[in-house]
Amino acid sequence: MAPNREEITAFFRQLQDEICDALSAADGSTFVEDSWDRPGGGGGRARVLRGNYIEKGGVNFSAVHGELPPAAARSLETQPEETSFYATGVSIVLHPKNVHVPIIHMNVRYFELDGGRFWFGGGIDLTPHYVDREQAAWFHQQLKDTCDAYDTDYYPRFKKWADDYFYLPHRNETRGVGGIFFDRLQPATEQKDKRTLFDFTAAVGRTFAPTYIHLMELNREQPVSEAEARWQQLRRGRYVEFNLVWDRGTKFGLTTNGRTESILMSLPPLAGWTYDYQPVEGSREEETLNSLRKDVNWVAG
Amino acid sequence: MAPNREEITAFFRQLQDEICDALSAADGSTFVEDSWDRPGGGGGRARVLRGNYIEKGGVNFSAVHGELPPAAARSLETQPEETSFYATGVSIVLHPKNVHVPIIHMNVRYFELDGGRFWFGGGIDLTPHYVDREQAAWFHQQLKDTCDAYDTDYYPRFKKWADDYFYLPHRNETRGVGGIFFDRLQPATEQKDKRTLFDFTAAVGRTFAPTYIHLMELNREQPVSEAEARWQQLRRGRYVEFNLVWDRGTKFGLTTNGRTESILMSLPPLAGWTYDYQPVEGSREEETLNSLRKDVNWVAG
Repeated sequence: MAPNREEITAFFRQLQDEICDALSAADGSTFVEDSWDRPGGGGGRARVLRGNYIEKGGVNFSAVHGELPPAAARSLETQPEETSFYATGVSIVLHPKNVHVPIIHMNVRYFELDGGRFWFGGGIDLTPHYVDREQAAWFHQQLKDTCDAYDTDYYPRFKKWADDYFYLPHRNETRGVGGIFFDRLQPATEQKDKRTLFDFTAAVGRTFAPTYIHLMELNREQPVSEAEARWQQLRRGRYVEFNLVWDRGTKFGLTTNGRTESILMSLPPLAGWTYDYQPVEGSREEETLNSLRKDVNWVAG
Repeated sequence: MAPNREEITAFFRQLQDEICDALSAADGSTFVEDSWDRPGGGGGRARVLRGNYIEKGGVNFSAVHGELPPAAARSLETQPEETSFYATGVSIVLHPKNVHVPIIHMNVRYFELDGGRFWFGGGIDLTPHYVDREQAAWFHQQLKDTCDAYDTDYYPRFKKWADDYFYLPHRNETRGVGGIFFDRLQPATEQKDKRTLFDFTAAVGRTFAPTYIHLMELNREQPVSEAEARWQQLRRGRYVEFNLVWDRGTKFGLTTNGRTESILMSLPPLAGWTYDYQPVEGSREEETLNSLRKDVNWVAG
């Protein structure tokens, strides 16, 4: 039987629990929960971590519904009968303390319009402050493995989508080493039934915790110099620039009266800017900047 | 004789010198200069300060010209014959070290289209980390005095314009205590000749240095607690949010291939975010948040 909104919502709620449990255990700290209601219908459960290794983390679950805001109707090019919506998902950004641990973002979501249209979306992408090619390759391999179990076209297609989406034109830089990004997956265009698309989205969600925890444990005890700590602030500054200037979800939320604190949970605890920063020639900072390019075939090594 | 673009440009260049000299003397430090060329025509002189009291400051002069970019033509609703432009101005943002000294922004500019249309724009606005009503009133009085010498309608009109412009809808907060903002001042609509409009714009530019230096000297030796320093980071975070999400000039520059380092000189050296920060009841932080409202009549005390 095709999964209905109740089943999908229950899964996302459970996924938030699973991920928070895994991160809590790995970090040795506990999340603080903040439940909220949406005036137009539904609500969410924000969980925030100020941990031992994760300096600022947010793991959000939400399930909201109601009348479709006019701006959303325009951007979705809805039919006249599609007047209300149901949306549920889990959204995560983690900013680690140690500069050698990457920033990570994950999102899985389901969207339904009355009238019957629905789709799944999501993705995971990694933003190392210092790019380590071997670790970036391993990260991409985890995503590829998850994708390949459903469709061998998915990884190349969704990897390119992430490259194009997580890009800062004003810096001519990608946000990090990318990952996968997908949206509007629906049976008609994917030649897959709703159950399979849901399973794929769930599998992406479940790839997150073991993948990130491995990278965190691998790097979190590395020593950090003062220069490296400043570099972390500058890279977080770029993260802020992407999210506030280019991220369509953030922009849409902030300009359509979304819940500001949930939307801006993605911002780092501390970020910095220096006028016209230039990395030292041959440095790891320069190497990182040179790696922030689209179309790098990470898994090929 | 009406001032031509050469005279206006020469004045702005000199204004940058005057302001840098005054700030250098007050801060006891010197600016670093970075001249740049614009590929399409013209260029600028960025001056950057990492000083004793000003933690990160930028005083930019630029004079650029060339073919009008399509996005600019659309937003200006140009006539077919208006294909190229000339623009010159001075733009300043200063982020002080001490939380008791406010952040300040100033801009004066002149814009000309071939075909003969031209206008002046500018403004000064203040963003205290802690609002001091007496100092805010004094600041507004300086702007009012400058305005009143040209037109007693200017201060109320341009004060309201600043309130509306420097506003964060997603926070329901003004950026700071406002100031004045004006744009597209031209003889036909203002019933003033070009010389008078230029003199007014120049007077606004010359109001900047003595006004800010007074506020800086008044507050810069105040002790700062750790909690106050964190509050400064959070307020700087809001400054980043305004500039990257709402400021039309920043958005326009970043999405039309403007010079990124000049546009983002306005960002603070270090800014912070905390999930759902709530000020302590009755605290100066709460009082400040309650003061960040439109339509406060500061000069009336």
